Amino acid sequence: MPDPMARPLIPGGTPHLEASAPNPSNPVIGILGTGDFSRSLAKRLLAAGYQVVVGSRTPKRFVALFPEEAEVTTQMEAASQADVVFVAVYPEHHPTLVAVKPALAGKTLVDVSNGLRPSAFGPSNAELLADHFPESAVVKGFNTVSAWTLQRGPRDGNRQVFLCSDSQKAKNSVKQICHRMGFVPVDMGLLSASLEIENMPLRLFPSWRVPIVCSAALFAFFYLYNFARDVLHPYVTANKSAFYKMPIDTVNLSLPSAALVMLALVYLPGLCAAVLQLRRGTKYRRFPGWLDRWLTARKQFGLCSFLCAALHAVYSLSLPMRKSARYKLINMAYKQVQSRVEDSWVDEEVWRMELYLSAGIAALGLLSLLAVTSLPSVAGAINWREFSFVQSSLGYCALAAATAHTLLYGWSRAFDPSQYRFYLPPTFVPTLLLPAAALLGRLALLAPCAAARLARIRRGWEAGRHVRFAPAADDGMEDVSNV
Amino acid sequence: MPDPMARPLIPGGTPHLEASAPNPSNPVIGILGTGDFSRSLAKRLLAAGYQVVVGSRTPKRFVALFPEEAEVTTQMEAASQADVVFVAVYPEHHPTLVAVKPALAGKTLVDVSNGLRPSAFGPSNAELLADHFPESAVVKGFNTVSAWTLQRGPRDGNRQVFLCSDSQKAKNSVKQICHRMGFVPVDMGLLSASLEIENMPLRLFPSWRVPIVCSAALFAFFYLYNFARDVLHPYVTANKSAFYKMPIDTVNLSLPSAALVMLALVYLPGLCAAVLQLRRGTKYRRFPGWLDRWLTARKQFGLCSFLCAALHAVYSLSLPMRKSARYKLINMAYKQVQSRVEDSWVDEEVWRMELYLSAGIAALGLLSLLAVTSLPSVAGAINWREFSFVQSSLGYCALAAATAHTLLYGWSRAFDPSQYRFYLPPTFVPTLLLPAAALLGRLALLAPCAAARLARIRRGWEAGRHVRFAPAADDGMEDVSNV
Amino acid sequence: MPDPMARPLIPGGTPHLEASAPNPSNPVIGILGTGDFSRSLAKRLLAAGYQVVVGSRTPKRFVALFPEEAEVTTQMEAASQADVVFVAVYPEHHPTLVAVKPALAGKTLVDVSNGLRPSAFGPSNAELLADHFPESAVVKGFNTVSAWTLQRGPRDGNRQVFLCSDSQKAKNSVKQICHRMGFVPVDMGLLSASLEIENMPLRLFPSWRVPIVCSAALFAFFYLYNFARDVLHPYVTANKSAFYKMPIDTVNLSLPSAALVMLALVYLPGLCAAVLQLRRGTKYRRFPGWLDRWLTARKQFGLCSFLCAALHAVYSLSLPMRKSARYKLINMAYKQVQSRVEDSWVDEEVWRMELYLSAGIAALGLLSLLAVTSLPSVAGAINWREFSFVQSSLGYCALAAATAHTLLYGWSRAFDPSQYRFYLPPTFVPTLLLPAAALLGRLALLAPCAAARLARIRRGWEAGRHVRFAPAADDGMEDVSNV
Repeated sequence: MPDPMARPLIPGGTPHLEASAPNPSNPVIGILGTGDFSRSLAKRLLAAGYQVVVGSRTPKRFVALFPEEAEVTTQMEAASQADVVFVAVYPEHHPTLVAVKPALAGKTLVDVSNGLRPSAFGPSNAELLADHFPESAVVKGFNTVSAWTLQRGPRDGNRQVFLCSDSQKAKNSVKQICHRMGFVPVDMGLLSASLEIENMPLRLFPSWRVPIVCSAALFAFFYLYNFARDVLHPYVTANKSAFYKMPIDTVNLSLPSAALVMLALVYLPGLCAAVLQLRRGTKYRRFPGWLDRWLTARKQFGLCSFLCAALHAVYSLSLPMRKSARYKLINMAYKQVQSRVEDSWVDEEVWRMELYLSAGIAALGLLSLLAVTSLPSVAGAINWREFSFVQSSLGYCALAAATAHTLLYGWSRAFDPSQYRFYLPPTFVPTLLLPAAALLGRLALLAPCAAARLARIRRGWEAGRHVRFAPAADDGMEDVSNV
Repeated sequence: MPDPMARPLIPGGTPHLEASAPNPSNPVIGILGTGDFSRSLAKRLLAAGYQVVVGSRTPKRFVALFPEEAEVTTQMEAASQADVVFVAVYPEHHPTLVAVKPALAGKTLVDVSNGLRPSAFGPSNAELLADHFPESAVVKGFNTVSAWTLQRGPRDGNRQVFLCSDSQKAKNSVKQICHRMGFVPVDMGLLSASLEIENMPLRLFPSWRVPIVCSAALFAFFYLYNFARDVLHPYVTANKSAFYKMPIDTVNLSLPSAALVMLALVYLPGLCAAVLQLRRGTKYRRFPGWLDRWLTARKQFGLCSFLCAALHAVYSLSLPMRKSARYKLINMAYKQVQSRVEDSWVDEEVWRMELYLSAGIAALGLLSLLAVTSLPSVAGAINWREFSFVQSSLGYCALAAATAHTLLYGWSRAFDPSQYRFYLPPTFVPTLLLPAAALLGRLALLAPCAAARLARIRRGWEAGRHVRFAPAADDGMEDVSNV
Repeated sequence: MPDPMARPLIPGGTPHLEASAPNPSNPVIGILGTGDFSRSLAKRLLAAGYQVVVGSRTPKRFVALFPEEAEVTTQMEAASQADVVFVAVYPEHHPTLVAVKPALAGKTLVDVSNGLRPSAFGPSNAELLADHFPESAVVKGFNTVSAWTLQRGPRDGNRQVFLCSDSQKAKNSVKQICHRMGFVPVDMGLLSASLEIENMPLRLFPSWRVPIVCSAALFAFFYLYNFARDVLHPYVTANKSAFYKMPIDTVNLSLPSAALVMLALVYLPGLCAAVLQLRRGTKYRRFPGWLDRWLTARKQFGLCSFLCAALHAVYSLSLPMRKSARYKLINMAYKQVQSRVEDSWVDEEVWRMELYLSAGIAALGLLSLLAVTSLPSVAGAINWREFSFVQSSLGYCALAAATAHTLLYGWSRAFDPSQYRFYLPPTFVPTLLLPAAALLGRLALLAPCAAARLARIRRGWEAGRHVRFAPAADDGMEDVSNV
C-alpha cells in the first residue's frame, strides 16, 4: 500500500525562495485552490519571477500558509487579474468554480488534477473542465510533477512536464512558464491526450506485470518439479525426510531454471519477428499484437532473469556456510575414516564442477553488464550501436554461457536412470528447451541465405514487388540511421 | 583531501570546436580574466556561435592560449565591445576592475566565481560585485559548471546552470546564452540567492553527514558490545583467547545490527509524523525541525543501511573460506571420529539456519531493489506512486524480513542463561528494539479508526473546525496529485 | 554482431499521437523519403503541432503507412510547401533529388543520414548534400535519434539532438523545432562538425578499447605466470597433475593482480602530470598526447579494475563450494585422524587470513562506491568537490587497502625459497610494483615543499616569471571555481 508519508512536503519550504520580492512588472499568474500543491506552485512561480495571485473562497484562513509575496484573495479577484490560471482544486469541485466563469473567459486554464485510479476511457478531468469552461483554453499539465519537486526546484531526476491542449497558443504560453521554472515541457498534442497524461502518475509498473507474473509462474513450476523429485520422491519411496531442503536447496535449484528460461524469452521474440519478416518477404506489415507487446517487454524480461540469476548466485555462495553442509561434510569425513580411504578425489567430478562454476560466473558477469546498461542514465549515454552490441551480442554470449553452465551441471545425470524419479527427467532437461531453441534459431538466421534476405528486407526490399524504378529516395533511412 | 589532478583539463580542447570561424553578425560576449575557466568558456561560446572578446591586462601573454577566433585584447576594449561580460577573475581582484567601471555601466555582468569555503552568511561574491558596480546588472551563475564540462560540452550528466539576479532582463539574456550553449538554466530568483549558488560547489555531502555518523556510532556500539561478550568474556572468565575474532567475526556480528537499526530509522520518522498529525488533528502545522530534517534524510539512512547489509552479506559468505573455519571443521571431524558418532545431524539446527538464511537473502534482495530505485535516473523514470510502492511497501517487507532473519538467528539464545555474559543479553535483543517499534507502529496505524482519520487529515480535513460550506475548492490537490 | 531486431519499431505507433488533428495555422514541415525514420518523424512532428508534408516518388504506395494527418504527396509538392525540409533518404540517393532543387532553393534542409561505418576523413554526407544544394542552408542533425525514440517521444534517456550548420538562422529554426518536439538541441558549431556528428552513432565504445586491451593483456600475463608456477612447475618437477586448477584457481589468482595494476594505472597519470608541472614550473604548457589520453581514460581503467575485483570476489567466495575443496578438506581430516593430532589450529595462519580478508573486503567496498559514483546520473547529481573526494581520496584508500590485502596474502611467501619456482618470484611481487610506485609517489607529493609549489602553479604562478604587477585579474578562476 502506498504510504503518503514516505516523502512528505517540507512545510517550511526553502529559505531563499521566500526571500524574493515581488516585482510589479512581472507577469501575473493565478492559482485557484489552496492545498499543498497550490502552495508549492506559488513558491516556485515566485522564484521564477512571476507575480502570483491565489484565489480562495476564504482567503483569510489561508493567507498565513502562503509566502508573503503571494497575494491571497478571492477567487473572482484572482481569476480577473491573471491571463494564465492554474486550477488546483479537486475535479469533483470544478462545478463550484462556475461563479468565476465570466472572469475566466478567453483565458488559459491549466488543469493540474489527477484521477483517483487509472481509467481506460474518457472523459478526462481536463476534458470535463473544458466542457465546463468552453470559452477558456484548457491546458493539461503539471499533474505528473509532485509538490515535493515544486518545493525543491527541478534540480534532479525528472524535469519533464507533459502538456496537451487544443489551443497551440495557450500551450505555448504554458510551455514558456515551464521553461522559466526550470522544467522541460513535453508536447503531447491535443487535449485528447489528457487521459493518458492523467493516467501517468497512477501507473503501477504496467510494463513489469507480465514479466513478473511470468517469472513467478516459472519459478513456481520449477519449484514444484524439484520438490516432487528431491523431497517428495525420497519420502515416498524410501521414507527419507529431506524437507529441510525446501527453504534453500529447492529454491536454489528452481531459481536458475527460471532465470535461464526468462533469458531465452528475451531473445525469442526477436527471432519470431525475423522469421515472420522472412516468410512475409516484407517489413511493411504489422506484427501481431502479442509479438509487439513481447518485443517491448524484453528489457523487463531480461532484468527479471538477472534478478533470479543474482539470487541464485547468493544462494549458491551461501551453501557451504549452512549447518546442513557442515554436518554432511563431517559425516563424509567420518565415513572416509571408517572405510580407510586415504584419498577420495574423483577427477571427473572436480573438472565438471570447476567448469560449470566458470560458465556460471561468466554468465552472471555478462548479465550484470546487461543490467548496468539498462539503467536509464547509462542507456542514455551510449549510442544505438553500442546498446545493440551489449544487449544483443553480449546477451547471446550470456545465454550461451548459462546454457553451458546448465549442461555441464546436468549432463551426466541425463543418462542415469535413477535420476528419472516419478518418471520426471532431471530439472535441467525441461529448463533447456527454450534456451536451446533460441540459440539454434539464432544460428539458423546466421546462415548466409537467411541473413542476406533479412538484410535486404530490412533495407526496404519487398519480395514479389517488381521494381521498375531505382529503389531510390523513397526507401530511405531504415537500417542506416535507426532501426 | 581533494586532488585537483583528478580530472584536469584537456589542454588542447576538442578539434571541431577550434574549427569554427567567427561570424561578424553574431552577438559579442566579453570575458574578463584569462584562466582555465575563461579559456574553456571562450571555446564553448565560440562553438555556440558567439563572437568572443577576452579582456586581459597583458593580452600579448595570453593570445596563444586562446582559440584563434577569440579576440584577446585589453580589459577596456573587451568591456566596451560586449553587452554581456563574464567576470572570471578571483573575487579578491574585483577591485582591480575599477578602471573599466564606466565601460561596464548599463551592461550585464556574469559573476562565475566561487568562494574558497562554504559560508553561512553573506555577502556573497556576487553581491560584493554588485556593490562595486551599481550601474551594471549582476547575474550570478556558471560557478557550478566545471571548466571540464565547458570543454567537453554539456553532453552528459549535469547540464543545469543555476542563475539569479535582481534584473529579470539581464537574467533572461544570460538564460538565452545558456540555452544556446546547450545548458539548462535554472532560475533561482533574486541576487540574494547567490550565496546559496556559491555554496553549491563547495558542499561535501552535507545530507550524508548525520546518517554516516549514525551508522558509525551504531556500528561502534554494537562492536564494543559484541567484543565484550564474545572476546573479552571468554578471556576474562576462562582465559580463552578469541582475539582472532576481532577482524571478521565481531565485525560481521555488528554490521547487521547497525543495518537493521538504520533501516528502522528510515521508517520511524514517517510514523512520528503520522502520530503528530493524528494528535494535532490537522496537517497545516509545521513539524518540529528535527522531524523535518529526519524525514529529508531517509534516503541516506536507507542507503547506509543497505551498505551495512551488503557488507554483512559479503563477510558472511566469506566465513567458510577462512582458515579458522577450516581448522574448526577438521577438529570437529576429528572429535566425531574419536567419539564414534556416525551422524551428528541436528534437525532443529539445520532448519533454523535454512530459515534465517532465507529471510536474510530475501531482506537483502528487497533492499537491493530499494537501492536501485534510489539512483537518480531510475527514480526520475518512475512516477510517485511507483516510488512510494517500492520505498514504502517493499521497504516495510524488507524490514519485516530482516527482523525475521534476526529473530530466527537469535531466538533460541534468548532463553539460554549462558548467553547472558557480563549480564549483557544476546546482541539481537538490543538490535530488535527499534525495528519492532517501527513494525508495531505501522500495524497500529493500519487500524481502521487511525487509518481513516489520517486519510481525512491528509485530504485537508481539520479536527475541531466547523465546516459550514462544502470543503470545496480550497482544499484541493493534496493527496490526489502529489503528497 | 549487432542485431537489428534487438529494438525494432512498434509498427503501430502510440494511439494518442494519431489522434491529433492537423491545424491549418501550424507551420509546415516537409519530409523527403518514406522509410521508418520518416514515418516516426512525421508522427512526432504532428504531435508537436506541426503540419507535415511527405514527399515521395510514388506517394500512393506509402499513404497508408503514414498517419492520416500527414499529407503524402510528390517530392516537388512537399519541397515547395515547406520552409524546413528533412531529407530522410539514403545519402547515395541524394542525386535523385536533383529534380526538386529549384523548389529547395533558399530553404533549410535537415540531413538526418548516417554513414555505414565510422570515417576519419570527410566529406560528410551533410557536406556532400550542401555541395549538391548550394542555394539551400544545410543543417546536420537528428541522426543520433533513433526512430524508436521518435515514436515513443523523448521521455527517458537521451534527449539531446546534436546540430551543426554554417547558417545560424537555419540552425536556430531547427533548434526551435527540437525544443517543440521535446528534445534538447546541442549546438556543435559549423557544418564542418557534421563528420563528427555522423560518426557519433557509429562509435563502438572507443574510450573503452585501450582499457579493455590493457586489462586483457595484464590478465593474460598473470595467468601465464601463475600457470607456469602453479600448474606447470609441479607437473615438470614432480609429475603432479594440477591441471584442474586452470578454470578457477589460476583465474582467481590472476584477476586480483590485473585489478590491482589497473587501479594503480588510474592514479599514475595524475602523478605524472603533477611531476611534469613541478619540473616545468608552469601549468601553461600542454601535456604530451599520451598523457592527455591516459588522463581521459582513468574512469574506464577504474571500472575495468572494479570488474576484475568483483569477479575475484565471486570466484573467491565460490571456492569452498567446489568438489575439489571438499575432497581436500576431507582428506585433511583423514590425515589428522590418522596422525592423531587433536587440534591443528595455527594462530599465525588464522590471523593472516582474517586480516587479508578484511583488507580485501574494505578495498572492494570502496571500489563499489567509486563505481556507483561513476554512473552518469550519480556523477551528475554531485558537485565537483564531492566527485573529487570520492574518486581521489576514497580511491587512494581503496588502492592502499588492496595493496595491504596483497601484502598480507603474500608476505610470508616472499622469504620462502621454495616459492621461487622456475626462478619466478611469487605472483604478488610483480603485482605490487606499480601500486607501490603510485602510493609512494602520492606520499612524495604530500611533502610540504612539493605540495606548496604545486598549489602555487595550479593557481597560475609560473617559475622564472618576474611578476611586476599584482598577479591580478588575469590569473583568474583556476582552482577556485573549477579545476
